[in-house]
Amino acid sequence: MQDRHHVVVVGGGFGGLQLVNGLAGAPVRITLIDRRNHHLFQPLLYQVATTLIATSEIAWPIRNLYRDRPEVTTLLGEVTGVDAGARTVTLKGGQAIGYDTLVLATGATHAYFGHDEWEPVAPGLKTLEDATTIRRRVLLAFEQAELEEDPVIRQALLTFTVIGAGPTGVELAGIIAEMAHRTLPSEFRRIDTRQARVILVEAGPRILAAFSEDLAEYARRELERLGVEVRTGTPVTACTAQGVTIGETFVASRTLVWAAGVQASPAARWLGIAEDRAGRAILGADLKAPGHDDIFVIGDTASVTYDGGKPVPGIAPAAKQQGAYVAKVIRARLSGAKQPGDFRYRHQGSLATIGRRAAIIDFGRFKMKGALAWWIWGIAHIYFLIGTRSRFAVAWSWFWTYLSGQHSARLITQKETVREKD
Amino acid sequence: MQDRHHVVVVGGGFGGLQLVNGLAGAPVRITLIDRRNHHLFQPLLYQVATTLIATSEIAWPIRNLYRDRPEVTTLLGEVTGVDAGARTVTLKGGQAIGYDTLVLATGATHAYFGHDEWEPVAPGLKTLEDATTIRRRVLLAFEQAELEEDPVIRQALLTFTVIGAGPTGVELAGIIAEMAHRTLPSEFRRIDTRQARVILVEAGPRILAAFSEDLAEYARRELERLGVEVRTGTPVTACTAQGVTIGETFVASRTLVWAAGVQASPAARWLGIAEDRAGRAILGADLKAPGHDDIFVIGDTASVTYDGGKPVPGIAPAAKQQGAYVAKVIRARLSGAKQPGDFRYRHQGSLATIGRRAAIIDFGRFKMKGALAWWIWGIAHIYFLIGTRSRFAVAWSWFWTYLSGQHSARLITQKETVREKD
Repeated sequence: MQDRHHVVVVGGGFGGLQLVNGLAGAPVRITLIDRRNHHLFQPLLYQVATTLIATSEIAWPIRNLYRDRPEVTTLLGEVTGVDAGARTVTLKGGQAIGYDTLVLATGATHAYFGHDEWEPVAPGLKTLEDATTIRRRVLLAFEQAELEEDPVIRQALLTFTVIGAGPTGVELAGIIAEMAHRTLPSEFRRIDTRQARVILVEAGPRILAAFSEDLAEYARRELERLGVEVRTGTPVTACTAQGVTIGETFVASRTLVWAAGVQASPAARWLGIAEDRAGRAILGADLKAPGHDDIFVIGDTASVTYDGGKPVPGIAPAAKQQGAYVAKVIRARLSGAKQPGDFRYRHQGSLATIGRRAAIIDFGRFKMKGALAWWIWGIAHIYFLIGTRSRFAVAWSWFWTYLSGQHSARLITQKETVREKD
Repeated sequence: MQDRHHVVVVGGGFGGLQLVNGLAGAPVRITLIDRRNHHLFQPLLYQVATTLIATSEIAWPIRNLYRDRPEVTTLLGEVTGVDAGARTVTLKGGQAIGYDTLVLATGATHAYFGHDEWEPVAPGLKTLEDATTIRRRVLLAFEQAELEEDPVIRQALLTFTVIGAGPTGVELAGIIAEMAHRTLPSEFRRIDTRQARVILVEAGPRILAAFSEDLAEYARRELERLGVEVRTGTPVTACTAQGVTIGETFVASRTLVWAAGVQASPAARWLGIAEDRAGRAILGADLKAPGHDDIFVIGDTASVTYDGGKPVPGIAPAAKQQGAYVAKVIRARLSGAKQPGDFRYRHQGSLATIGRRAAIIDFGRFKMKGALAWWIWGIAHIYFLIGTRSRFAVAWSWFWTYLSGQHSARLITQKETVREKD
């Protein structure tokens, strides 16, 4: 085993796993390195943040996924650099791990456009911890409002602002509004949670820029029907613990959620290759790091175009297609077969949900909205989960919510038990 | 509603909830205050710590439980004192809440017998956060061992010590040993997790002092069959990040779990009444705080005896019986009916599991052990969970583990992503 071609994969997201899956049976040994012990199904992370499902339903221990593949070694570690000359990656702590082929699939995190000081007051949503942080803050705001005697502070506590109106922002705002207006009213005695305001702010001219205009317009009406105030065309200019400034206007809002920008992981910098504005490594259609024949970059940390210049979007299907492509390239190299042609991204469509009953689907020619779209969205997402256990658990949580109107995972956990009062 | 007799209940554990349940339909209004937003089913907390079930399966938002009882107000807040003269409880932040009758059901936490400095290295198990901390440390130890090149450090990482051999200690040690010896071996490539040592330390002469000697002996043999080293009769004299000292002997062990002592909440001190060694308020058989006709103390923070001097144990059924009793007393007072006689604890029995297939049940005259006892234990615990959702979710997690041998919730979450290396 030790003399086999050694593929090192950094990152156990959608791209990294698809690559490892694509190399099943190939004459390689694989080391898969991730900072976390689990693969995360990010498309449903907003449902953890909004108490609909539990953390363990959308996360799987990576090493457990490859327990039946003895050629795959999983390591929990943080990569801090690549030495392309020595063909090693360096782990935090100093350990170096040699490779024959290296695949960087290290993903992206949220970006605050030069305002990193906003992060503590406006957390983004990329990890399980982010999701439990948002869950805690949303639930705590209602709890503190129930205790609060000053009506002005109470209204600030009952004002929730989601910044950025892509699918994640729309999904978060929709569920928070449903919670406030439908799930929680019977549980509070001193406040009326239906008085809560949920504001969705988008700097661009409209919400859901990746979707067609009529679908985005439908989503906007559905959000408003759920009680969300949608504000487009004005950027957020300040975020503090007291509230958010939209353009020139300050809104007292104690709970902010950031769903606006992304920043790639530093893979491009490790390699010293060109990066785009978001820090993504700029690649050709072979997904190779320019100048490095044995290093590939895939997923959210790669900047690739298709169809004559459109950027490949940072979504799970794109990362998976890239992982599958690179697996084919590696297989062909090792077997001496003809190399596959250039990577060509096939856009399968965009999906987003609004609350618990409506969704929009944009497959280009085929478009769909409403309750049936929600069911298609739900079935597709359960299908893409890994393993019977999670499929069953998520289906049960949804079914339960559907039946009872109650959410499964309304827990306030971790440190910040009570936030500072004024 | 506002002119009704006002019962303030501090603590939403088994005792507090049973009291509120017992007052259904009574001419009272109730304010239920807890530091946490959820009621926790502590008897299964060790299963969260050992990755068998998810946090949300054994925790319920308290206010959700009383959504259909408009006379019950739930507040998330930390009580810091009682002013019995003014008949108010004080919340952190200064708010005072008046009462006509006060019930303190504030529970207990772990105690380190004057060695609070051991807490960071040997966490106890009382809250959901404690459970995820222990889960994280156990899983991280295996991960770090897989990365570690020094065999001495590797063995220290693969040595787990549980301190205290009551039911919780026995349950934790059993599952950790099963994980190491049965669940994990196929997932690691550089270490053999079957080399892991699990040590269960008990200062007293035998494990499971609350059980009969033959059942405790059976449990000991079962633990040893699972690979647990049981050490009785010697106290732990030091805990550090490097290991544990048992009597005079140092054992290099990077993961310690504390399951030894309890310390009551400061209810007795708030009232200025006598307390026992563990800080519990010493009460007569009327469960009233001596000298306070309108204050009751129940559950783990109360020190009560039965059957001529035996202490009522700090377990869920005892707290529930006390809650039900005090509800009856309050009802009788308000209706002018005859007061119920003294509180009399009925001991229903003790249960403990060893690993995933065996349990012991001690009902006094009736004793039982083995696989059938495990099934009775499991069915009883599912029965006592609140609501269809949780019963179903826990049953599914167990069924899944039974079927596949895999655990449901093997997640490393929160801060300490990588512990300090030497």
